[in-house]
Parts: sequence; C-alpha cells; structure tokens
Amino acid sequence: MDAFEFMNVVGLVAFAMVGSLKAADADLDLFGVTVLGILTALGGGTMRDVLVGRTPASLQSVGEMSVAFVGVGLAVVLTRAIPDRLRDHPSVLLPDAVGLAAFAATGALVGSQAGLSPYGVVILATLTAVGGGSLADLLLTRVPVVLREDFYATPALFGGVVFWLLLRLDVTGDTAALVCAGLVFSVRVLALRYDWELPRV
Amino acid sequence: MDAFEFMNVVGLVAFAMVGSLKAADADLDLFGVTVLGILTALGGGTMRDVLVGRTPASLQSVGEMSVAFVGVGLAVVLTRAIPDRLRDHPSVLLPDAVGLAAFAATGALVGSQAGLSPYGVVILATLTAVGGGSLADLLLTRVPVVLREDFYATPALFGGVVFWLLLRLDVTGDTAALVCAGLVFSVRVLALRYDWELPRV
Amino acid sequence: MDAFEFMNVVGLVAFAMVGSLKAADADLDLFGVTVLGILTALGGGTMRDVLVGRTPASLQSVGEMSVAFVGVGLAVVLTRAIPDRLRDHPSVLLPDAVGLAAFAATGALVGSQAGLSPYGVVILATLTAVGGGSLADLLLTRVPVVLREDFYATPALFGGVVFWLLLRLDVTGDTAALVCAGLVFSVRVLALRYDWELPRV
Repeated sequence: MDAFEFMNVVGLVAFAMVGSLKAADADLDLFGVTVLGILTALGGGTMRDVLVGRTPASLQSVGEMSVAFVGVGLAVVLTRAIPDRLRDHPSVLLPDAVGLAAFAATGALVGSQAGLSPYGVVILATLTAVGGGSLADLLLTRVPVVLREDFYATPALFGGVVFWLLLRLDVTGDTAALVCAGLVFSVRVLALRYDWELPRV
Repeated sequence: MDAFEFMNVVGLVAFAMVGSLKAADADLDLFGVTVLGILTALGGGTMRDVLVGRTPASLQSVGEMSVAFVGVGLAVVLTRAIPDRLRDHPSVLLPDAVGLAAFAATGALVGSQAGLSPYGVVILATLTAVGGGSLADLLLTRVPVVLREDFYATPALFGGVVFWLLLRLDVTGDTAALVCAGLVFSVRVLALRYDWELPRV
Repeated sequence: MDAFEFMNVVGLVAFAMVGSLKAADADLDLFGVTVLGILTALGGGTMRDVLVGRTPASLQSVGEMSVAFVGVGLAVVLTRAIPDRLRDHPSVLLPDAVGLAAFAATGALVGSQAGLSPYGVVILATLTAVGGGSLADLLLTRVPVVLREDFYATPALFGGVVFWLLLRLDVTGDTAALVCAGLVFSVRVLALRYDWELPRV
C-alpha cells in the first residue's frame, strides 16, 4: 500500500464514521445509520464514476465497501461508549481532512483521464470530495453544510485547480495527485485552525 | 406473462399508487402527483440501470410507464372517492409488498449480470426496491421512511443476500430470483403483521 | 450562432441567475451561490446526458460552463445593487422562459436521437428544462416548485409531446426542435401573463 492508498483508506473510515454519527444524532435506525455511513464514504466516488460513464468502483470492488463498514462499526461502538459530540473532535476531523484530500485528488485524476474540460476536472475533484457528505445531508433534509458555511469544499476545489495546472506543466498525473492531496489537506487544516469562512453575497 | 412479470406489474401499479397518494396528501398539483407516482414506480429501476451503465428501461419501453400511469390514475380516482388514508390499507400494502419482492429480485439479477461484487448485488437489490419511494420522499423534503423506522428495506436487503448465496451454490439466476422474491414478500408481510422494527444505535 | 444556440446562451445565463439569486436569498455563502447557479443552469442537461449514457456536455465543453458563470456573476452584482426581489421581474422571467424553451427542445432532440420511447422523449424534454432548478430546490430542502404550483413544467412537457408528434409526421429533428421551443416559450409566457395553475387532485 503506497501513501496515496493509505490516505484513501483513512478517508473511507473517517467519512463513514462522520456519516454514521450524523445519522445516529438524527435518530435513524440501524439501517439508516449504515446507509448514511456507506453513502458518505462512497457516494462522492460513485457519482464521479457515473458522470464519466464507469461502473462505480464501490459496486465492483469488495475492499472499499469493507473499509467503509469498519467506519460504520466504529461509529456505532463509539457513539454508545462516548456521550460527547464525537464529530467535532480532532480524532475525527483530522482523518476526515485526509479523506477530503485523497478523494479530491482521485476525482481530479479520474476527470483528467476521462478527457474532461478544466471545469470538469475541478468539478469532479470537488464532487468526489464533498458529494457523499452532501448526499447524506440531503437524506436528512438538511441544506448541505458545504453550501452554507463550511470552508470544506473550497480546499478540494483549490486542489482541483492546482492539479490541472500541474498537468499543463507536464507533471505526471501521479505526482500532481500527491501535490493536490497535500495542498487540500494543508488548506483544510488551516481552515479548521483559524475558522476560515467564505463571504456571503 | 409468467409469475415474475405478473409480480412486476402488480408492483408497478402499487408503487405508483403509493407515490401519488403521498403527493396528494402533501397537496401537490396534478403534475406533482403524476411525477411522484411515476418516480416511485420507476425511480429505483432507473437508478439501477444508470449505475450499471444501461439506458434505463423506463425510458425505452412503453409498457412499464403505461402500467405506472394506471397506478397514478387509480390513486387520483380513489383519493377522491375514499376520504380515509388509503396508504395504510391492506389493499395497498399487500400489492406494495409484491412490488418490493419483484423489484428486489430484478435488482439482484441485474447486479449479478453486470458482474458486481456481492456488496454491489445486495445494494442493487435494495436500491431497486426502495430507491423510487426514497426519491419521492426526498422530493417532499422528508427523510426517507426506510432510513427511520420501517422494516421495509431490510427484507429487500435480505433477499439480495440470499440471491447471491444461491448463485454461489450454482442455482440459476431465474430460480434464485423467484426464491428471492418469495422470501422478500414473506418477510415483509411478517414485518407488517408483527410490527417489526430495527434497533437504534 | 444560429437562433437555437442563441436561445441556449440566453437560457444558461437566466437559469444561472435564478439559481444564484435563490441561493443568496437563502443566505448561502459564495460557494453555495455559485454551485446553485451552475447547477440550475447545467443540472438538467447533465441528468439528461447521464440517463442516455453520454459523458455530460457540461463537463466536457468550456463554453456552457463559462456562460453559466456569467449568470452567477450577474446575480452577485445585481443582488447587491438592487434590493428588490429580482427573481419575479420580467427581465429575469422572460430570459428564463427562453431557457425553458431551448432546454426542452434540446432534451427532446437528445431523447429521440438515443432511441427512447415516446414517454422517454417527453420525460427527457421536461427533465432537461426543469431538472436543474429542481435540484437546486432540493439542495435548499424545498419541495421543487414545479411539483407544487407552478405552470412551468407543463409547457416543457407539452413541447416534448409536440416534438414527438412532429417527428412521427416526418418533420426533421431540427425543425421539430424549433417549433417545440417556440411553443414552450409561448405557453410559458401565457401562463405567466394569466396566472395559470394546474388543478389539485
């Protein structure tokens, strides 16, 4: 497993935890908690694959889904053991930032391989990173938090732009993906540390 | 028309009725009532086809859509004739369980034909069965009822697991689909009869 | 640029403006305002392309997305300059009707080229025209306005039916698309002028 695959695994577990914790807070039953965990972890990548005409990796590989189930299981165990709001704790927020970074980079890579326009590459990076969580928000009938107030989609979008610029400078896709992931992670952590917000119009 | 096709037709009518009745309760106009009926009947199968890269059968065949329109028409007529809440009546709930069974079996069959992983087969069975109703709930800005409290997705999921096990035992797809449908229907009827619920976490 | 392409550009700008204004009213941040504008303009066409198995034009061409950004920019500037509710003003409603017409015609054309059933053609016309705005409504957790009370989807649906009838009479696709667009625009303007509504059931 290389660094990038490792980030992906960390991200899948963290995203599944976040989704399941959100569902448990909303008093869903066990099926709902599982669906929201799986969807948060794999929904972004599934939308990405559908948009470029691939059969979703989430439905074809056993590995990704199994890793996401670990996150769901962790959430179920921890939500019973720890009464506090786990979702805002660094032990969840940091792995979640790792996932944001890994997913944005994967999305940008898939988009450029599919021959999308620069816009398309940036959109696919962002959607892969924040699409799963936004679907989960929608299923809970909430305006996706990334649209309202969080500096969460912005690092992913920024990473997509940088990825595309690097490709134009003849950097290989793999290197561009690593730089992109590093940038997304750094910007996200800075945003958490300093409570960055986007302006309203 | 064999037994399986018959179940599909019953299911399309029942699902369309349920969707349209829900929309009428929510005071949508005639267009909204029609859309929610059609979407409840055909939305799950459409998502299934998109996920495995097929052009949706709902947009290609005339038959399925016509059958769904019968359900919409029945809902419009009955909702005017009968003031009571029709959706909880056995004359709707039983055909609805037939649809759940037929759609779960079709979803599992399509998933295995598309070469999905065991997870993928189970997800496609469940999504085909409950996806349309959940889309309708979303359009009414409600948390899909299957995520909250209903023992409705669980029979479909269980049917998908059994379907996959049977294929592993070299049972043909057609036989496995019939057994799957029979199981889903039985479990759903038992759940209705005994008010089964999933635990919360 | 022919008449049809011109209508498409007008529509993209108008739809993006409507989506962004809606998002600004709902107090989303700059990212949310941008996403809702882009989604309103390009969401219907993207769903259309996914349903017929194409890579979405919105992710491949630079032009459409750039035009939509113009609409987002206009909305951001105007919402600061003009305090009144811009969305109900004829200077927005008329270009929006142009877009409805152009998108319905494009949807019908793509549907017939993909060999869909008559139902499929009509659904694709309607979805291309109203799908983006409905997605935006969903992201704001609102029941899509077209399902509740607006005489907005009906002209598009009607245009899809007429398009299909014309093809059956051996009219070419291009001519049928122009007639369809003209009809949709006229019916929509009449509906606005006379406050048409669909009955409830």
